[in-house]
Amino acid sequence: MSKTRILTGITTSGTPHLGNYVGAIRPALASAGATDVENFYFLADLHSLIKAQDPAKTQRSTLEIAATWLACGLDPDKAWFYRQSDIPEITELTWLLTCVAGKGILNRAHAYKAAVDKNRAEGEDDDAGITAGLFMYPVLMAADIVLFNAHKVPVGRDQIQHIEMARDFGQRFNHVYGKDHFVLPEAVIDEQVATLPGLDGRKMSKSYDNTIPLFAPRGELKKLIAGIVTDSRAPGEPKDTEGSALFQLYQAFASKEETAAFAQAFADGIGWGDAKQRLFERIDAEIAPLREKYEALMAKPAEIEAILRDGAARLRALHATPALVRLREAVGLRDLSAIAAVEAKAAKKDADALPAFKQYRDADGKFYFKLVQGERVLLQSVGFDSPRDAGQRVASIKNGALDAEMTDFALGEGVGSDEVNAALAAFVAAALEGEGGQA
Amino acid sequence: MSKTRILTGITTSGTPHLGNYVGAIRPALASAGATDVENFYFLADLHSLIKAQDPAKTQRSTLEIAATWLACGLDPDKAWFYRQSDIPEITELTWLLTCVAGKGILNRAHAYKAAVDKNRAEGEDDDAGITAGLFMYPVLMAADIVLFNAHKVPVGRDQIQHIEMARDFGQRFNHVYGKDHFVLPEAVIDEQVATLPGLDGRKMSKSYDNTIPLFAPRGELKKLIAGIVTDSRAPGEPKDTEGSALFQLYQAFASKEETAAFAQAFADGIGWGDAKQRLFERIDAEIAPLREKYEALMAKPAEIEAILRDGAARLRALHATPALVRLREAVGLRDLSAIAAVEAKAAKKDADALPAFKQYRDADGKFYFKLVQGERVLLQSVGFDSPRDAGQRVASIKNGALDAEMTDFALGEGVGSDEVNAALAAFVAAALEGEGGQA
Repeated sequence: MSKTRILTGITTSGTPHLGNYVGAIRPALASAGATDVENFYFLADLHSLIKAQDPAKTQRSTLEIAATWLACGLDPDKAWFYRQSDIPEITELTWLLTCVAGKGILNRAHAYKAAVDKNRAEGEDDDAGITAGLFMYPVLMAADIVLFNAHKVPVGRDQIQHIEMARDFGQRFNHVYGKDHFVLPEAVIDEQVATLPGLDGRKMSKSYDNTIPLFAPRGELKKLIAGIVTDSRAPGEPKDTEGSALFQLYQAFASKEETAAFAQAFADGIGWGDAKQRLFERIDAEIAPLREKYEALMAKPAEIEAILRDGAARLRALHATPALVRLREAVGLRDLSAIAAVEAKAAKKDADALPAFKQYRDADGKFYFKLVQGERVLLQSVGFDSPRDAGQRVASIKNGALDAEMTDFALGEGVGSDEVNAALAAFVAAALEGEGGQA
Repeated sequence: MSKTRILTGITTSGTPHLGNYVGAIRPALASAGATDVENFYFLADLHSLIKAQDPAKTQRSTLEIAATWLACGLDPDKAWFYRQSDIPEITELTWLLTCVAGKGILNRAHAYKAAVDKNRAEGEDDDAGITAGLFMYPVLMAADIVLFNAHKVPVGRDQIQHIEMARDFGQRFNHVYGKDHFVLPEAVIDEQVATLPGLDGRKMSKSYDNTIPLFAPRGELKKLIAGIVTDSRAPGEPKDTEGSALFQLYQAFASKEETAAFAQAFADGIGWGDAKQRLFERIDAEIAPLREKYEALMAKPAEIEAILRDGAARLRALHATPALVRLREAVGLRDLSAIAAVEAKAAKKDADALPAFKQYRDADGKFYFKLVQGERVLLQSVGFDSPRDAGQRVASIKNGALDAEMTDFALGEGVGSDEVNAALAAFVAAALEGEGGQA
């Protein structure tokens, strides 16, 4: 439990490109070896359903992305690797959090607000075409995180708000149900992670159609790199590294020394063709062994399926299922027979208790006594004028059994005289043993 | 499958009173014996969490309400009786429906709008104090219903909108994922069901604090009935049945004949005390045997727990789990190894197919042929000037193996000449057996 739990969600849509590799996959796997860290990587396929409604694509994409992470070094024996939809406790917890999550907070989620703004700009109703999925995304994400009591969640700046919401919902649950059920997660922003430029110099992104697929075959990789936009300086002319997509791509894969040498080549007027060849070789040197693993994995989808199922099964047994048992108990979704246990325990406590006489003065100024056993009142006296009178009566009862003609006390509600006699006998026996009841 | 499935959700908060019995429990159990009906009764404990945040109360209330329905005649061998939270497929499906449910539709839910209106009246923010649970209630309810393909859902008028939403979400899912995954449910409103008056003459309701607990002990029942508000007419004076809470309560428990006799007694000037005694006796005659069962059940909460677990386990095995397998498949949360199966099947289909020559005329007016095996193109010819030229070339290839010097056709993409020779050999062999490829 002293290990820091780091949880990384992996979007299961599209085909991974170099930008995903440099910006997400490589840094996420960098901490995988650390001994003070417990890593959770999961395929966020339930999230993907918000947008992806082509089942075959969802399946294909999940396979490719699982194979990609495994090929890039995710070791399922050293980190948790699982598919979100294989852990039904996540959707169960989503509902529990839904019941404490403030709707007003969800109204302010960036992704939802952006969709509303777009509708407004187009003169549509605020919520036109918006599903409850987009709106509820942050609650599902909170469940992903707090179910495993993750301490840290590496995210992009645009996701910080979601981590804040996860904290808020977790805290609210802790407050409503009275203790620290959940660790409150922290967002981790890696300032070091470079945004990779795409073929056209803008950020590499599927939406700009400027990506280089991570596992493009060598020939295609070379061809794509040859198509990177450059300026028109001729070989021999010094080139700017500043603002050069080609240089930034190289830097993302090269050591400090290699990068310095490449910068020198720019200053020395390397031709763009040669520069692109060096970039291709540098990238391919890193990617080629991963590509080989990837292709081997893609040829055996049943193995990937088995890895994911195994991860989910172990994680459920160790964390998710016991966590839901605790959380269900916390909110009151409880074993009904436990009520009997609670009540039996209370009854046993009464039966185990020694009978005791309690004397007291009431609001009417008179002096009373009662015979109690645990929480149960067996006898209740009338009021006496002095404490001495009451004390004498107690003494006389202690020394004898009940007498039906005694009228200065009454049996407690639902109490039979047999029961009182049994209690008195126990009381007397205890007194003889020198332990005594309190008088 | 030809049975009509009727699904009844049971709120698990509070202690049942006579109004619940007459208005909900008794009518819901009336159809339980019919052979053309399959009844589903479930304790909606996940719904209860929206409001109930006292775990011990939730547990106690769930027990009492389960015992109540069993005492009132629910036979768990003849109807499905289960606790919502014991079926994790319900929350899984809730997320799948969340991803297709229009947020705009949820904005219009009565319960949510009422909460917003209340906030506005109090000068608060629209969503102040409103949880996502209240907002998402209709999606959870839709999942309750469509998971089991319920045909009919008996509801009060205030719930009709929720059934319409369940239809909408189910229909939307059917549309997005391309077939009739869900039956669209219908609301059933029982116009016959009387609203029972409470002790003060208003509708019997916990919020008016005018209820008679269904299983109040005889003494308490009698005392409560004695407290029913009446007018001040003396014994001997004729009494109005119209507007008399006492009369309406009697009517809810009595036969037509008994009711007529009671009306006559009113006309004959029965004293209120006597009328109350007759009402008490009539109600107690119906309730006493149920109360006895209830008390016996409440003494054995472990049995109730076992009944509920057994119901959920059987229902999951027979309906819920297989349904989610189908639905996960439908949305693309699929076994990844099935991709291999699909692709292997396609490959096998190609391999099993006999090779065949196909001749055709293209847009350029020339005549072509190609050698195909299944979906795979093995050879593609250049264009010939006449169909005869193309046909002669086909005949010559059929009778011999490939010759590397032949330049009037090319191998298909990724096809080796060995593969074509093998296909041709199969083709020739098949022709010799008199089956032949199509030419």
